[in-house]
Amino acid sequence: MHTPQLFHFLKRQTPFPGHRAVLGVERPLQLDCGRDLSAFPVAYQTYGALNGDRSNAVLVCHALTGDQFVAEPHPVTGKDGWWAELVGPGRVLDTNRYFIICVNVLGGCMGTAGPSEINPETGEPWGLDFPVITIADMVRAQAMLLDALGIPDLFAVVGGSMGGMQVLEWAALYPERVFAAVPIATAALHSAQNIAFHEVGRQAIMADPNWCQGRYFGEGKRPERGLAVARMAAHITYMSEPKLHEKFGRRLHQRDAVSFRFDADFQVESYLRHQGISFVERFDANSYLYITRAMDYFDLSDRYGGVLAHAFQGTPVRFCVLSFTSDWLYPTAESRDIVRALNAAAANVSFAEIVSNNGHDAFLLDEPEFHRVLAGFLAGAAQHRGLNGG
Amino acid sequence: MHTPQLFHFLKRQTPFPGHRAVLGVERPLQLDCGRDLSAFPVAYQTYGALNGDRSNAVLVCHALTGDQFVAEPHPVTGKDGWWAELVGPGRVLDTNRYFIICVNVLGGCMGTAGPSEINPETGEPWGLDFPVITIADMVRAQAMLLDALGIPDLFAVVGGSMGGMQVLEWAALYPERVFAAVPIATAALHSAQNIAFHEVGRQAIMADPNWCQGRYFGEGKRPERGLAVARMAAHITYMSEPKLHEKFGRRLHQRDAVSFRFDADFQVESYLRHQGISFVERFDANSYLYITRAMDYFDLSDRYGGVLAHAFQGTPVRFCVLSFTSDWLYPTAESRDIVRALNAAAANVSFAEIVSNNGHDAFLLDEPEFHRVLAGFLAGAAQHRGLNGG
Repeated sequence: MHTPQLFHFLKRQTPFPGHRAVLGVERPLQLDCGRDLSAFPVAYQTYGALNGDRSNAVLVCHALTGDQFVAEPHPVTGKDGWWAELVGPGRVLDTNRYFIICVNVLGGCMGTAGPSEINPETGEPWGLDFPVITIADMVRAQAMLLDALGIPDLFAVVGGSMGGMQVLEWAALYPERVFAAVPIATAALHSAQNIAFHEVGRQAIMADPNWCQGRYFGEGKRPERGLAVARMAAHITYMSEPKLHEKFGRRLHQRDAVSFRFDADFQVESYLRHQGISFVERFDANSYLYITRAMDYFDLSDRYGGVLAHAFQGTPVRFCVLSFTSDWLYPTAESRDIVRALNAAAANVSFAEIVSNNGHDAFLLDEPEFHRVLAGFLAGAAQHRGLNGG
Repeated sequence: MHTPQLFHFLKRQTPFPGHRAVLGVERPLQLDCGRDLSAFPVAYQTYGALNGDRSNAVLVCHALTGDQFVAEPHPVTGKDGWWAELVGPGRVLDTNRYFIICVNVLGGCMGTAGPSEINPETGEPWGLDFPVITIADMVRAQAMLLDALGIPDLFAVVGGSMGGMQVLEWAALYPERVFAAVPIATAALHSAQNIAFHEVGRQAIMADPNWCQGRYFGEGKRPERGLAVARMAAHITYMSEPKLHEKFGRRLHQRDAVSFRFDADFQVESYLRHQGISFVERFDANSYLYITRAMDYFDLSDRYGGVLAHAFQGTPVRFCVLSFTSDWLYPTAESRDIVRALNAAAANVSFAEIVSNNGHDAFLLDEPEFHRVLAGFLAGAAQHRGLNGG
């Protein structure tokens, strides 16, 4: 079953549209694992225009399975950008006002260096020879891109879920380069339960014989079934039980009675199967291993003697921490831990828990209250920054 | 990798120890799917002695991956029985006082008819030719066993999780044969989220090429990796986030620093992998498909026009409904739905929510308050039943 996407993943003959920079040519990126990356590609998209004094740049950080196509149709699926609702002219992240940058993370599979990209030393895809990366590595690569673009600092860095981890890491690593930071539906460390769910996904991928110890491109294969199972397990955690109940309940799928077979009798089964199948069209299994690993390794307090507040000591950054009531993957308690640490560091922080039934995925969905709060915070910050109104 | 257990599953040359009855010889079991089962084996264990007037029988119903070895070492793993703490002389389910029966469910893999047993028509394991069964079918088979044993009615029927579903089904199907019923950590219908988690497990099994469309015994194979992934995903749902945090947190496994590889760096990863590997030694993948399906199909109100209370109208059964505060698989709200229906049916019902950090698995663990409440309820019921004190 060689779909065009499989062809794409196997042959990489059609580069993704959009911007691509090669970084680390003069000075390599030093990774947390101790290895270096030199002359590595970073794929990114931009929206809007950088203003004269280069003060209106907003970095949007994507989540585990997101990418740089935040506000335009996805080149593989043709679907709307994942935050098209938020990014655009007159929208919350107003492209008439801000210069929006979104970068495919290190380890990703949409053009930035990762396991499906070519290892320049061998001319073959990296596979598991790609170094295991961290959230901090992702952020350091983004900072190198800003250097290359001649952007000294960011008006704001914004992101949900793993995007929020990058936001926190930005504020910790480069406080002087960030005016405002918005970590959404995220945590300063990955919990045991979340590590456990990720491990199930990784084991599902590695159990697929088509994974071939990570060398599937060389074998002309892809571990599609394992990756689909990983996605299905993860997808349940992105929704809330009330939402699943409301959206599907026990309703049957295209039938009046149960089949007494192993078909997708229930709508929720059919939905999950679809989520799994459509995901593998656009995502690389090894990238899934690497990026989940980076999230599992994330504990921002690690570098600060286990005291999260020390990550933000004396920070000039203005924070807006946002969570959602029904998010059980990154529950509000974990946002409160961030807020508590910011308060202990005497940081400027506002916090809102948004009432929503949409679970973790709320940050990606039409949530008017969330959008209002984010818009309000950005407007206030823009005023302080002296950015002209839109 | 032909372990003794694999040999056991493949060859079935060593029958399990314990009792085995052949039921449905004169009159077949009519299944909900419309098919019949005749001359089918049912494996069970008993503890204690039936009294003279046959009034002290207690049926213990096991959960998804449980079996009949409730109070003695498991014949495959050698581990203690799954409720050894509760069942025995002087224990809550006092074998000096009660005649305890535990039956491997229909669809199971420990001696009762199921996909790994021999189809008498072909002489080969049933595989997917085994009929899809329901919780009601399991209960009907248990009732046939009681008939065969000459036990007219049960003093009590007790069970947690899927065992609790059987308890509810017993009370609905055979109210005149049940004096007291204790559904624990369960629900009267399987929620969309729970169906979703089961579907992930089934897809993990069916994605394993060793599954061979269910005919793996004939191929000398077993879908061990798929079944292990299914178990890992399910196991997360059996624990609570606070328990995982307390038990493992982000502690590393046999190392001082993360590996920057895909080893089991974290204790929680190592623990989950172990859960997966040890499970496949004792459980059959097709049984996992069948039993999860039976649970997904469970909605007791279905036969009663969608009104759960109608399942219990005029019931003489005394109920004790128990839930655990940190159980997110069968949260207390679902037990309250049962209690509400029982109240609407004017049934005799007591209800307790036990404070516990142990999540769904609490019903299997050392929970003194749970054991006290259960013992108290049984003592009261025994007095009403006129059973002599132990």
